[in-house]
Amino acid sequence: MHTHYILELRVRYQETDGQARVHHANYLTYFEQARVEMLRAAGFSYKELEAAGIMLVLAEAKLRYFLPAEFDDLLCICVTTVSAKGARIVHDYRVTRGEDLLCEGRTVVACVNRQGRVQRLPNWLHSDGAPAQGEPTTE
Amino acid sequence: MHTHYILELRVRYQETDGQARVHHANYLTYFEQARVEMLRAAGFSYKELEAAGIMLVLAEAKLRYFLPAEFDDLLCICVTTVSAKGARIVHDYRVTRGEDLLCEGRTVVACVNRQGRVQRLPNWLHSDGAPAQGEPTTE
Amino acid sequence: MHTHYILELRVRYQETDGQARVHHANYLTYFEQARVEMLRAAGFSYKELEAAGIMLVLAEAKLRYFLPAEFDDLLCICVTTVSAKGARIVHDYRVTRGEDLLCEGRTVVACVNRQGRVQRLPNWLHSDGAPAQGEPTTE
Amino acid sequence: MHTHYILELRVRYQETDGQARVHHANYLTYFEQARVEMLRAAGFSYKELEAAGIMLVLAEAKLRYFLPAEFDDLLCICVTTVSAKGARIVHDYRVTRGEDLLCEGRTVVACVNRQGRVQRLPNWLHSDGAPAQGEPTTE
Repeated sequence: MHTHYILELRVRYQETDGQARVHHANYLTYFEQARVEMLRAAGFSYKELEAAGIMLVLAEAKLRYFLPAEFDDLLCICVTTVSAKGARIVHDYRVTRGEDLLCEGRTVVACVNRQGRVQRLPNWLHSDGAPAQGEPTTE
Repeated sequence: MHTHYILELRVRYQETDGQARVHHANYLTYFEQARVEMLRAAGFSYKELEAAGIMLVLAEAKLRYFLPAEFDDLLCICVTTVSAKGARIVHDYRVTRGEDLLCEGRTVVACVNRQGRVQRLPNWLHSDGAPAQGEPTTE
Repeated sequence: MHTHYILELRVRYQETDGQARVHHANYLTYFEQARVEMLRAAGFSYKELEAAGIMLVLAEAKLRYFLPAEFDDLLCICVTTVSAKGARIVHDYRVTRGEDLLCEGRTVVACVNRQGRVQRLPNWLHSDGAPAQGEPTTE
Repeated sequence: MHTHYILELRVRYQETDGQARVHHANYLTYFEQARVEMLRAAGFSYKELEAAGIMLVLAEAKLRYFLPAEFDDLLCICVTTVSAKGARIVHDYRVTRGEDLLCEGRTVVACVNRQGRVQRLPNWLHSDGAPAQGEPTTE
């Protein structure tokens, strides 16, 4: 797995609120999009993952907002995989506009099956591609 | 079926945009919520409908915007069933704030099954509860 | 003004609903993004327009939905300027995924000032890039 | 200030995602709505606050998700003011459906002026209405 990925995106008008800044809830959507694109850059499709019964659901999120983003701003959403073991992946995020740091975040996603029961991550999603619990790495 | 229903709702901050007015896309969400509540007022649950394999999907929408709504406004979403036959239901909407008419709309929803194939509306959803094509009304 | 523009975008997870398809309200957001990018392609910034006191607000919208879009789909939002005169611009839209036509739409935006009062479009926004040098206004 | 408030709300279809559960970003919107209603229950209007140049912006958020919410669920958003001093208000949240705890959160909002500069909270917003730093309470 790539452990860094930078998604560039442009703020939509719909994402702003009455203070003419990006509504704070949208950062979670930006983070999600960055995770999906990081996965794609590593050669995987989150859509196919779900089709295979591997669902990733958000378990925790933490955000700190420093500066507002505005309509039409070009943002970089930089996502880093901090760890991926057992049934959980931890990601860190930094949202920047040029030199400015606008927002920082951390999320924990849990791997569940279609019934919502927690399941172990597939090996290839584990940090560093390291085999888990002595199993051979097959990816 | 009731043929009129008025949903009262309060504009959320998140629903406003950089012009400090409700972003126009949210009216479709308001309309949808009004359809769901109209159904509930008639004794039915859209959730149970879906569980029974009766999905209603939007086929057409038409909106005219007259005046902006703002954060914290108390809006009335008045929905009327214009017709419900075959596989389609037509609804009209008026969004008002006190005396002011803010928006008018019309939607057409189509009844489909889980595979997305168009299917006839259940009888009890037909206009006036009138039996369709000579069948007995069972609901 | 360019009279055609194609915006390519990828469906976000957040934009889907419980039927695992793009929620119908999001198409209005896609349309808006396409208008903004069409303007940019023509050398203008909607953000600067607003800063100059030229606001474009939605007056009418019409949508027809043919096929559902799903998470991760790559969509083309093709926007065409149908007319731009007086205080109104009419746009047509076609949303496609490969060969499939998913949705068609038309919007009318009205030009207003900061107080929400209708004002004439700036000349350079008029259809056909009609000359804007103190020439007689025909609208 | 009231220090507890319970907002009851019904999940909209638009708020669900392709996993047929409420998309995680919406909880921040639910929290915001609960803060606004708590303020109203205490006799204040956030809208008037903004009109008076007192803006509250999100500085931090933390969420833990335990169980999914679905379309049409009736949720209780219980918000508690943990502290309100200087320029910051800390709130805790619990989102429940019947007996089930779905989500817990904490937010920190900062008080800024129209230019986005941090300013002291008005006295009446301070915890317990207690005057801050020995000043007389003027509200």
